[in-house]
Amino acid sequence: MSERRNQILEAAVRVIAQDGIRGLRVDKLATAAGVSTALIYYHFKDRTGVLDAALEYINHRAQRYTEHGLDTAQPRDRIENTLLLELQQTDEVRETSIAWGELRASAVFNTHLREPLAGSTHAWNTDIETLIRDGQLTGSLSAEIDAAAAAERLTTLVEGLSERWHSGSVSLDRARALLTGAVAVELDRP
Amino acid sequence: MSERRNQILEAAVRVIAQDGIRGLRVDKLATAAGVSTALIYYHFKDRTGVLDAALEYINHRAQRYTEHGLDTAQPRDRIENTLLLELQQTDEVRETSIAWGELRASAVFNTHLREPLAGSTHAWNTDIETLIRDGQLTGSLSAEIDAAAAAERLTTLVEGLSERWHSGSVSLDRARALLTGAVAVELDRP
Repeated sequence: MSERRNQILEAAVRVIAQDGIRGLRVDKLATAAGVSTALIYYHFKDRTGVLDAALEYINHRAQRYTEHGLDTAQPRDRIENTLLLELQQTDEVRETSIAWGELRASAVFNTHLREPLAGSTHAWNTDIETLIRDGQLTGSLSAEIDAAAAAERLTTLVEGLSERWHSGSVSLDRARALLTGAVAVELDRP
Repeated sequence: MSERRNQILEAAVRVIAQDGIRGLRVDKLATAAGVSTALIYYHFKDRTGVLDAALEYINHRAQRYTEHGLDTAQPRDRIENTLLLELQQTDEVRETSIAWGELRASAVFNTHLREPLAGSTHAWNTDIETLIRDGQLTGSLSAEIDAAAAAERLTTLVEGLSERWHSGSVSLDRARALLTGAVAVELDRP
């Protein structure tokens, strides 16, 4: 990915996190990224192209800050750590998480966002499902767990908690505690 | 509540569910409700007044279509039925659910919505928590369950599943199955 393209997408995530999708106009994005509008049209064709690329870039950012959750031996801890890294009080995580939620909410009304969003969601579910299956294969997690369902619930819960966090209905500490508890009820079977 | 006020709020929920919060202009709402803009200003003072009242009205609607989930003896079944009634393929439920999600998403950027939204969320959490405690008191649910945390997770999951449903990342049937599974892992302890 070119450095300029990256620079535009970083700015796009920031603008979406500050003002929402409706705030993302190409001229405003050009100012935020410190580039010309022509360069934006060159890289992304139009505003829709920016949104699609921003969605992909958000996943790339989230992978960057959650990957060190995998620096541990046990699949169960990998799952808990990776999911908890989505709920952190840093600018990078907050911006990424708000922008993701905003793209999700916009897809209710903008149908063209649905397909890429469903693809990213599916990939995320599968990542967590694979970690659960790893634990089941090595015997550290119960074979009784429905890996696909547990993974899908956990990622959905992260989204729900994130939306409540950003909209002021739950504190970050409480959201993290609820998520830790969810991992326990889903995975720690006798 | 006056009949005209109701009529305006029914239209407001419909407009929000179709075009989002940004689509809710007073002139458009007047047309949708079949009333004058003056009547809207008379009842709600301004657009913010409409949004606040719409939030309250959405809760009122949700209570209306979930209350028959309580027509059963066992607290556990009451919880499952009540929550599942939030995920139904009827116009009333879809509209209410989309409008709730849209208000939630808007509150990330519009801080004035946060307080009423937090209040409604808290009331919903408490309703489910009370049902869990009822089951614990009568011995049908395990005393080991953290009633407040389980309730908060279940309502958050309903929101997360609803957003994925409306944005095309999960089917309604799958969302309902995942919710049923969540009630089981949260409440059916040995």
